[in-house]
Amino acid sequence: MAGNRAVAYKGPGTVEVIEIDYPTFELKDGPGVNPANVGRKVPHGVILKTVATNICGSDQHMVRGRTTAPPDLVLGHEITGEVVETGPDVEFVRKGDLVSVPFNISCGRCRNCKARRTEICLNVNPDRPGSAYGYVDMGGWVGGQAEYVLVPYADWNCLVFPDRDQAMEKILDLAMLSDILPTGYHGAYSAGVTTGSTVYVAGAGPVGLAAAASAQLLGASVVVVGDFNAERLAQARSFGCETIDLAKGQPHEQMEQVIGDPFVDAAVDAVGFEAKGHEGKEAPATVLNSVMMVADAGAAVGIPGLYVTGDPGGVDESAKRGALSLDFGTGWAKALSFVTGQTPVMKYHRDLMKAILRDRLHIAKAVNAEVISLDDAPRGYAEFDKGAARKYVIDAHGSLG
Amino acid sequence: MAGNRAVAYKGPGTVEVIEIDYPTFELKDGPGVNPANVGRKVPHGVILKTVATNICGSDQHMVRGRTTAPPDLVLGHEITGEVVETGPDVEFVRKGDLVSVPFNISCGRCRNCKARRTEICLNVNPDRPGSAYGYVDMGGWVGGQAEYVLVPYADWNCLVFPDRDQAMEKILDLAMLSDILPTGYHGAYSAGVTTGSTVYVAGAGPVGLAAAASAQLLGASVVVVGDFNAERLAQARSFGCETIDLAKGQPHEQMEQVIGDPFVDAAVDAVGFEAKGHEGKEAPATVLNSVMMVADAGAAVGIPGLYVTGDPGGVDESAKRGALSLDFGTGWAKALSFVTGQTPVMKYHRDLMKAILRDRLHIAKAVNAEVISLDDAPRGYAEFDKGAARKYVIDAHGSLG
Amino acid sequence: MAGNRAVAYKGPGTVEVIEIDYPTFELKDGPGVNPANVGRKVPHGVILKTVATNICGSDQHMVRGRTTAPPDLVLGHEITGEVVETGPDVEFVRKGDLVSVPFNISCGRCRNCKARRTEICLNVNPDRPGSAYGYVDMGGWVGGQAEYVLVPYADWNCLVFPDRDQAMEKILDLAMLSDILPTGYHGAYSAGVTTGSTVYVAGAGPVGLAAAASAQLLGASVVVVGDFNAERLAQARSFGCETIDLAKGQPHEQMEQVIGDPFVDAAVDAVGFEAKGHEGKEAPATVLNSVMMVADAGAAVGIPGLYVTGDPGGVDESAKRGALSLDFGTGWAKALSFVTGQTPVMKYHRDLMKAILRDRLHIAKAVNAEVISLDDAPRGYAEFDKGAARKYVIDAHGSLG
Amino acid sequence: MAGNRAVAYKGPGTVEVIEIDYPTFELKDGPGVNPANVGRKVPHGVILKTVATNICGSDQHMVRGRTTAPPDLVLGHEITGEVVETGPDVEFVRKGDLVSVPFNISCGRCRNCKARRTEICLNVNPDRPGSAYGYVDMGGWVGGQAEYVLVPYADWNCLVFPDRDQAMEKILDLAMLSDILPTGYHGAYSAGVTTGSTVYVAGAGPVGLAAAASAQLLGASVVVVGDFNAERLAQARSFGCETIDLAKGQPHEQMEQVIGDPFVDAAVDAVGFEAKGHEGKEAPATVLNSVMMVADAGAAVGIPGLYVTGDPGGVDESAKRGALSLDFGTGWAKALSFVTGQTPVMKYHRDLMKAILRDRLHIAKAVNAEVISLDDAPRGYAEFDKGAARKYVIDAHGSLG
Repeated sequence: MAGNRAVAYKGPGTVEVIEIDYPTFELKDGPGVNPANVGRKVPHGVILKTVATNICGSDQHMVRGRTTAPPDLVLGHEITGEVVETGPDVEFVRKGDLVSVPFNISCGRCRNCKARRTEICLNVNPDRPGSAYGYVDMGGWVGGQAEYVLVPYADWNCLVFPDRDQAMEKILDLAMLSDILPTGYHGAYSAGVTTGSTVYVAGAGPVGLAAAASAQLLGASVVVVGDFNAERLAQARSFGCETIDLAKGQPHEQMEQVIGDPFVDAAVDAVGFEAKGHEGKEAPATVLNSVMMVADAGAAVGIPGLYVTGDPGGVDESAKRGALSLDFGTGWAKALSFVTGQTPVMKYHRDLMKAILRDRLHIAKAVNAEVISLDDAPRGYAEFDKGAARKYVIDAHGSLG
Repeated sequence: MAGNRAVAYKGPGTVEVIEIDYPTFELKDGPGVNPANVGRKVPHGVILKTVATNICGSDQHMVRGRTTAPPDLVLGHEITGEVVETGPDVEFVRKGDLVSVPFNISCGRCRNCKARRTEICLNVNPDRPGSAYGYVDMGGWVGGQAEYVLVPYADWNCLVFPDRDQAMEKILDLAMLSDILPTGYHGAYSAGVTTGSTVYVAGAGPVGLAAAASAQLLGASVVVVGDFNAERLAQARSFGCETIDLAKGQPHEQMEQVIGDPFVDAAVDAVGFEAKGHEGKEAPATVLNSVMMVADAGAAVGIPGLYVTGDPGGVDESAKRGALSLDFGTGWAKALSFVTGQTPVMKYHRDLMKAILRDRLHIAKAVNAEVISLDDAPRGYAEFDKGAARKYVIDAHGSLG
Repeated sequence: MAGNRAVAYKGPGTVEVIEIDYPTFELKDGPGVNPANVGRKVPHGVILKTVATNICGSDQHMVRGRTTAPPDLVLGHEITGEVVETGPDVEFVRKGDLVSVPFNISCGRCRNCKARRTEICLNVNPDRPGSAYGYVDMGGWVGGQAEYVLVPYADWNCLVFPDRDQAMEKILDLAMLSDILPTGYHGAYSAGVTTGSTVYVAGAGPVGLAAAASAQLLGASVVVVGDFNAERLAQARSFGCETIDLAKGQPHEQMEQVIGDPFVDAAVDAVGFEAKGHEGKEAPATVLNSVMMVADAGAAVGIPGLYVTGDPGGVDESAKRGALSLDFGTGWAKALSFVTGQTPVMKYHRDLMKAILRDRLHIAKAVNAEVISLDDAPRGYAEFDKGAARKYVIDAHGSLG
Repeated sequence: MAGNRAVAYKGPGTVEVIEIDYPTFELKDGPGVNPANVGRKVPHGVILKTVATNICGSDQHMVRGRTTAPPDLVLGHEITGEVVETGPDVEFVRKGDLVSVPFNISCGRCRNCKARRTEICLNVNPDRPGSAYGYVDMGGWVGGQAEYVLVPYADWNCLVFPDRDQAMEKILDLAMLSDILPTGYHGAYSAGVTTGSTVYVAGAGPVGLAAAASAQLLGASVVVVGDFNAERLAQARSFGCETIDLAKGQPHEQMEQVIGDPFVDAAVDAVGFEAKGHEGKEAPATVLNSVMMVADAGAAVGIPGLYVTGDPGGVDESAKRGALSLDFGTGWAKALSFVTGQTPVMKYHRDLMKAILRDRLHIAKAVNAEVISLDDAPRGYAEFDKGAARKYVIDAHGSLG
C-alpha cells in the first residue's frame, strides 16, 4: 500500500505537506471530522490517484485563520484523478477511469440530490445541508490536495472522461470542472446571461475569470471585469474582456465609458465577504452594493462569491455574525433578483466537459493555470494570497508533464 | 362635462375628498407631476368611470408622511372601471367595456414591456423605470380614487372583462386584479410555490392574504401566515391558512409545531420596510431576516413587500438611505434566491381573471373586501392604518350596490 | 422464506395467479428477462411486501396480445409496499418503511437520471433507454402484482412515506403515486396548464381522470374530458369536470357549447395508439388530430398516452410500424408544441405525496379506486378491459381493510 | 411623392418588378388583401425606405405556384429600412431611424402579443392568428421587396438600431434580423441547444445555416448540417460545422462517424414540407422521421421548417391536406418533444442585434449574403430556387455600396 502525502493547514498563514494515511473505504476520525461521521462506511466510494488538484480561493479563508479549521486539516476540494480502487458497491465507475469530482459531495439519494440541488445534499454533512472535501465544518471528508483521496458515492459523483488520452491532452482545462468553471458558469447562468447580454463580473480572481469566460460562452456581447489588481485585470483582457480598475472609481461611474451604457444586463459577484473597499479596508457589503448600482432594472445577480454565517475575524460586530449593510431598496426599486449559494456542480460539469473536449472553451488559459508540484503547494498558497493572476494546479504525481 | 371628485393626500395623516378636473387626453400640470411629463399628449388613453378603486397599503407610506408627496396629490392605483371615452389612437378597447387596470403604468412599446417586464417600463416615468397612478415620484399620473380617471396606452394596459354582466356579479373579486391579487400571486410564484409546497407568508395584510390565497391556488399543501395582528390572523384562518402569532416568537421557533417541520419550501415577504420588530419598534430588516431563518435550504423568497431607496422617516441613518442589516450569510449558506420589485401585473392578471370568472378563487372574501363610498375614503384610510383586517373598496359611483 | 403468488400473463386475453420464486437480490432468468440482465446482482435493492399494486391500462396492451410478451410474464408496475429486506448497499431506506415505487426503474447514476430524466435511464434496460417492472422488452424486471417484489436501486427509487400510520389512512390515494397520478400530472404539466387554463383531456380512463384532477390542482379554470364511455364521463363529472361525449362529434365541434370558447389553452392525450375512431374502429392518429383541432394557437400538448414503435396487431401497415397520419400542418400553423414519452415519476411524486398527505387532492376518489384481492386480479383485468370506470387496486396481503 | 417599384409574383415560376403605389397610412385593396382588412387605417404605422430586403425560402412556395397567391402580389417579408414618414400615433420611432422589422406582423395589444407570442397575433390577420408581409392568406399586408413599405404598429414592431453609422457598417448582418436569423435561432433554442450540446440541423439553406450559427452561439460543442446540396454543405463547413451528405445515407447512419456518437442532443428541422427524399422525390415526412431517428432519447426538436395545412401541389392525397406519415412511436419511445410554428421574432431580435453589433456573430458571411439590385430580384429567385448557396439581399436604393 502506497503512502500518501498531502497539503495541510497548520495554523494561520501556514500550509505544509504532511504524511497522512492512505485512504480506505471508511471515514476515519481526524482533524475536523464531525463525530457523527467518524467510522462511516464508504463502500460506494472509489480511491483516486490525484492527477490534478487545485488551490481555491475559498481555501484561503481557512489558511488566513478566518475560520475554526483545526491544524492538520488536509486541504483541497478541486480534484481530478484516476480511479485506482473501487468500493464493493460501485457499479459503473471503473478502475483506470479518469474522472472529475464535484467539490460538493453529495449522496445521490436524498430529495435535494434528486432535484439536482447537490449543493445542499442532506446526507453528507451532519451539521447542515451541503458539504465539500477538505473544508472546515463540512463533515470532515479528507481533502484532495494529496496523492490519494477517497471519493464517496462514486457512481453518482464522478464525471468519467470518455477517452483517457484525449482527456490528458486537455487535462488542465478539465481540471477546472471540479469547481471553478462550474462555479463561474453558475454565476453567469444564474445572472441570466444569454445571447447579447452585457455583463459585469466583480472580481478578476479565478472564479471571476471563469465567470467571464462562461459569460462569453453563454453568448454575452461584452463582459466587463472589475478589480483593484492590475495583473488580474490584464489576465481578463487576455481573452477579450473589458476591464474596470476599481482604484479609479465604482463600476457604475466607469461603465458608460467602457461599454457606452451606464448599466449592464447581468452581474456576477465573484468576490464574496472578504471584499476590499476603496480605502483598501475590508468592506463585506461593498461588492453587492456596487453590483446593485451598475445592474440595469430587471437584471439578475449571480452570487457565487462566498458569504458566511459567521466570521470571527470580521471588521465589526455585524460582519462577525455575517450581517451586511445592503442597499436593498436600490435593488428592490430596480426589481433585481439574486441567486446565492454553492454551485450544484453536477448540473453543469458534463456540458462544460463537452465544450472543452470539442475546443469551445480554453479555460485553463483564461485563468492562467500554473502547474506546481505537491511540495510547492505552500508557495502556491502564498503567491495566490498576494494576488498572483494564476490558478495553481498541483501535480501530485508528476503526471502533468 | 361631469365634475370629478377625488381622494387626495393633504398632509401627514390627512386624506380628503377634493374636486379635480375631469380628465382629458393630456397629462396636465398638477401636484407631483414631473415637469417632463407636463403637457404630454395621451391620444392612446381612455377615460374610465371608476367602478371600484381600492385603498392600498403602499398608499399609507405617503399618507403617513414618509415620502415627499405634495398636498393635493390624488391617491389610488387600484382601478376598475367602465370606459366612457376613448382617445383617437385607441383601436380595440371600446366605450362601455368594463376593464381592470394594472397599477403599474406601461407603454407597451419599450424593450422592457416587450419582455413582459411592465413594472420597469422605460417610457412613463422620467425619473426611473416603472410608474403607477397617484404615487409620488412616479411621473405624476393622476390617481384613480376619483370618479373619473385617465388610463394611458389603453389597448395595452386595459384587461377587458369578456362579459359585463358576469363581471358585475364578481366585481369585488375582479377589483383585486389591478394590484393586490397579482402582487400576492407574484410573491408566491416567484417563491417557487408549486404542487405540495409548504409556504410561509410574512404579513397578514391584504397583500399577505392574497399571497396566501395565491399559494393555495398554485397547489401549496399548507400555507402559514405570520403577523402580530390577531384579527388579521383570524382572517387568514378563515380560508384555511395556518397562522403564527409573532408576538409569541419568531416564525422559525414556531413552525415545527404548526406544520411538523421547522422549515418551509417557499417564503413570501408581504410586509416590506415598514416592518415592526418584536419590541413593537420599526425594524426594517426583521422580516427578511426571519424569512431567511424559516426558509429551507434551496428555497426561493418572493419579496412583494416594498423596500425603498430612501426613507426620510427611517429609524436610523441606515434606514434613511434604504440600507438594511441583512443576515446574508445565512441566506447564502442555504443557497436561497430572492426576487424583488413591483409586480408585472400584466403577466398574471388574465390568468387570474379566468380563475375568478370560473369560481376557482374567491379573493374578495379572502381579503375581506369592504365597500365604502368615496366620501368614506378618509375613514377607510384611518381604519386600515390601525390594522383593520379589511380591504377597502371605494365605490365611486354607487354602482357596487 | 415465504412463497410468492403473482399475477401473470398466460396468453392473449388470459391472466392467472401463479406461484413464483420469492425475490432475492439478483435478477434471475425467467419469462421476458433480457439475457444481458440475467444474473445481474442487485445489492442496492430492497424486497417489498406489496401493500397495493394496481392494474394499469398499459398492461392491457400485453394482455390483449398486442405485444411479444411471453407467457408467465408477471405483470404489475404500480407498486406500493413495505420494506421487508434491504440489500447490503442500501443506506437510507429501512426495513419497515412504507414506500411508493416509480413504475420507471432507474439507476440514479447515469447522466439521464442526474438530469431528472429517469424515464430514459441508461443502465436498467439493455435494449433501450428506460424500463418498467413487469413489462415486455423492458429488461425483464419482475412485475409487482405479487406478494413480494424486488426494487433495485432502492435508495434512489423509493419514496418513503414520512409516517406509516398517516400513510395507511390515505393508502389508496398514495397508491396512485407509482404511475397514474404522476403520469396524469405530467400530461397536464407538460401541456402548460397553469392558473386559469382551460384544458381538454382526451380519454376518461384512469390516466385521463388523473390528468384532469392534476389540471385542477395546477389551477385550471375548467377541465373538459372527452370519451365515448358514458360511465367514465360520469366519473369525470363527479369531481367537477365538464365532459364531451365523443359519440356526438369531435371535441372542437362541441367545445364552444361547453366552455363558451371553441378552443382550449392546453390539451392532454391520455389515450395513445389504441384510440378508437368515430366508427368504433381503431384509429391510432385520431386523438392527436382531434387534439390539434381543439387546441388554441400557441397551446402545448401533453402526450402521456402510449405510442409504440411497432404494433403487430395494428390496423394497417403504417400502424404496424408505429407510423401515424398526422395533420401536422394544422399543428404547425397554430405553433403548437408536443411533449411525449414516459413520465419521469420521480420529478413529481414527492410534491404530489405532500399534496395528498395534507388533503389537497383526493385522487383515489377521482379515479374510482376499487380494492380487489390478488385472486380477483383476472376479473379486474376483464372488467377494466370492458371499460369499467374503476381503477383496480390489488390488495395482495389483505392489508387494505 | 415618390414612385414605388416592387417585386411581384406574376404566376408559377415568374417574378417581376412592377410599379405600385407609394404607401399611405391605410391598407388599400389589392392582390391578396383580405376584404376585412381593406380600408384599415394605420395611423400607428411608419413608411420605410427599404435599405435591405431579402429573398426568403418561404417566398418560393408561392413562386413555385404551390399556393393560392394571386398575380401581382408584392413579395418580401424580410425588411430593413429607414423611417421616412411616421403616422400620427407613432410616439417613439422617429424619422431617420434605421430599423429592422420582424416578418411576423403583430399589434402589440392582444393577449398573445402581451405574452411574447407575436407569431400568433390576433389582430392583424382576419383569417387566423399570425401574419406576415407579402404573403398569401396573411391578411394582405403589402410586401417589402419594394422601394417603400408600410409597417403597422411601428412603435411595437420596429427594432431601432442604436447608431445609424455603426449599423450601416454591419448592415448585411443586421438585415438577417427580420427573419432568417431569429428563425434559425428559434429552431436551435427550442431544440434546447445549450453549452456543449451536439446538434443536427436538417437543411443547409439559409435558415439551416442560421440555425447552425445560432447553435454555435448558444454554446453547441459541435453542429452537424445535413443536405443533398454539396455547395450548401461547403458553405456550412466554412464556419466550422460538420456536414452530412444525405445522398450517402440517412443522418443516423453517418452520425457516429462524424461525431463519434450515433445520436445528437438536439435537432432542428430547417426544411419543412417541401422535403426531398432519397430518391429525389418529394417526401414531406422524411425530414421529421430522420430527425427522430438521429435524436437521442430525451432530446427536443425545433421545427422552424414550414408545414402547411393544405398543399394543392402535394405528392399525394395526404400531402395535399397537410397530413404526414410520422414515425411517432419512435419519437414517443425516446421521450422527444417538438416545437413548431413561426418564430416570434421579437423575442430574440434585440439580443441578436446586440451580438452582431459587438462582433459576436457574423451571420451574413455564414449564410453567404449576396447583394443584388431590385431589378435583379427575378434572377435571385431563380438562382435560389436552383439551390445556390447564397442569401439574396435586395438593395432597393443602391445604399449597400
